[in-house]
Amino acid sequence: MKLGSLKNDTRDGALCVVARDLRRATIAYDVAPTLQAALDDWDYAAPRLQDLYEAANRAPEGSRWFEPDFAQFHAPLPRAFQWLDASGYLAHVERVRRARGAELTKELREEPLMYQGGSDAFLGPRDPIAVESEDWGIDLEAELAAILGDVPPGVKRERAAEHVRLLVLANDVTLRNLVPHELAKGFGFVQSKAQTAFSPVAVTPDELGDAWDGRKVHLPVTVHVNGTLLGQPNAGVDMTFDFPRLIVHAARTRALGAGTVLGAGTVSNKDAKAGVCCIAEQRALETVARGEAATPFLRFGDRVEIEVRDAEGRSVFGAIDQEVVRAGHRAAAAEPAAAAG
Amino acid sequence: MKLGSLKNDTRDGALCVVARDLRRATIAYDVAPTLQAALDDWDYAAPRLQDLYEAANRAPEGSRWFEPDFAQFHAPLPRAFQWLDASGYLAHVERVRRARGAELTKELREEPLMYQGGSDAFLGPRDPIAVESEDWGIDLEAELAAILGDVPPGVKRERAAEHVRLLVLANDVTLRNLVPHELAKGFGFVQSKAQTAFSPVAVTPDELGDAWDGRKVHLPVTVHVNGTLLGQPNAGVDMTFDFPRLIVHAARTRALGAGTVLGAGTVSNKDAKAGVCCIAEQRALETVARGEAATPFLRFGDRVEIEVRDAEGRSVFGAIDQEVVRAGHRAAAAEPAAAAG
Repeated sequence: MKLGSLKNDTRDGALCVVARDLRRATIAYDVAPTLQAALDDWDYAAPRLQDLYEAANRAPEGSRWFEPDFAQFHAPLPRAFQWLDASGYLAHVERVRRARGAELTKELREEPLMYQGGSDAFLGPRDPIAVESEDWGIDLEAELAAILGDVPPGVKRERAAEHVRLLVLANDVTLRNLVPHELAKGFGFVQSKAQTAFSPVAVTPDELGDAWDGRKVHLPVTVHVNGTLLGQPNAGVDMTFDFPRLIVHAARTRALGAGTVLGAGTVSNKDAKAGVCCIAEQRALETVARGEAATPFLRFGDRVEIEVRDAEGRSVFGAIDQEVVRAGHRAAAAEPAAAAG
Repeated sequence: MKLGSLKNDTRDGALCVVARDLRRATIAYDVAPTLQAALDDWDYAAPRLQDLYEAANRAPEGSRWFEPDFAQFHAPLPRAFQWLDASGYLAHVERVRRARGAELTKELREEPLMYQGGSDAFLGPRDPIAVESEDWGIDLEAELAAILGDVPPGVKRERAAEHVRLLVLANDVTLRNLVPHELAKGFGFVQSKAQTAFSPVAVTPDELGDAWDGRKVHLPVTVHVNGTLLGQPNAGVDMTFDFPRLIVHAARTRALGAGTVLGAGTVSNKDAKAGVCCIAEQRALETVARGEAATPFLRFGDRVEIEVRDAEGRSVFGAIDQEVVRAGHRAAAAEPAAAAG
């Protein structure tokens, strides 16, 4: 099934069930008020949401059904109690490092990089990417992420996939020029990651059919910047650390609470013909080939589109489609709310 | 006022107002179900909670009032949408680095270290510290933290303190022997920080009277391990990066959502006679003085008590009082719930 969150007058939105073709939706108020509430009590919620999903797929009419406008959707989890993001695709790490003359170490080949990210306010699929300065090096990162149920500490690899409740598409907006400074401090990314955006819906693994094998999503992730294709690498190819491996890493010393969002990192294939899912890799390829980067990072007014289509060409998660804007506007609008709240 | 969360059959507990002397409490069901809900709508909730607080301080009788048992309390926020933890006290950083032969760099003197921590499940004040192995080097870190309202991106230092809704005491449990490996990777701490515990109540800044100057808490933090004093440094002394400075750092490139918990790091005074708030510093002092560390990290069965008392000797936040246990017990108990959830 496909689940999303409609914007309303609360911070967590209203849980929606969305039909497979993304053209019918209903608010699941009779099951759970929010997606987090459904994840907190999944055994209760899931079969009831499934009933609604099956009804949605029959293209129903009637007052509880509406055609969703994804500009009115939050991220499926508008905020989450945990956002962990890894580097599951070593081709991404290798390219970015090679461009600055560093090699992949043995350790990087054996253990995923993973950081804890900000999850207090995710962006919806059509929300602007509001950043104060272009000088920060605004970049997209197209990723797949799993939304987990409760994971016990020290979970074994062969049991890890059982805890994947949903899969979702993400744009992990990165302020590239602030990364080296924070990386050198060793404490991870506080200032160099902007708010992460998510696709309109998150989907249960069964929704992917054969494209989900319990470890990877075998579908291409397509990225356009200003209408020009940046890349469409396949998320099932060259994934060095698959989802079970990432879950094991994250849960090594502690439990993970229901609603944890675990990103697998920028999708990247070794075959450069597949293109890339972030500008940093494009610049790295250019630097290696020609001695200098040609593609600029994102500028105000630029548009980023990210989508995953199945073998039949149908959009799985709905599209992420965001414009980059100067943060001033948004900060000014947010100021009174902050003062009032 | 003083606010806590009573354990119930939900993950977020029931918001409670607790009297100044910590001996009367009531469930604030008529104001907000949870502390997060109150923080989400603080202008509505705060005056109503204040009314209940004033009633609680009149030592009332009646069925809505009870004497709180803090073993039945969660952390004030049992889970949070953001937990940022900084190194506000450079004496802590300096000692730990000196023990391994590293100096404080100019950069470390000018900008706080800050990492994003796991906030999907905090520990209550009397919950056991459950860790799989003593070999991981189990350590406590006694800290003060601010719970924030909405903070706009790029907030100015002189406006930052306005967003401090509550102050709280924390034990940021650290797996010391796993730290160097993660620090070297640069991505922060995923495996080397266990669940953070918090005091029974969080308090509004006005509750501290003159001990809160809008920047620092001028009170000693007292730590006992197995009944022996480890230290009682004053949190208002040698705080290199105060709360407004930490808020500015955290919000440099993005807004911070209501309910963000911002830790100021292990309290530490330059005067070694004040003692320490973590075992790593004790071991560092021993290493510098005698060439080797004598105090072991925590072992199963050890007990950690952390408390802050005001000038009149009254407990401000209630005590954190935790036993270190082998994780097996807890993991075994958690397994069926995880399977069911």
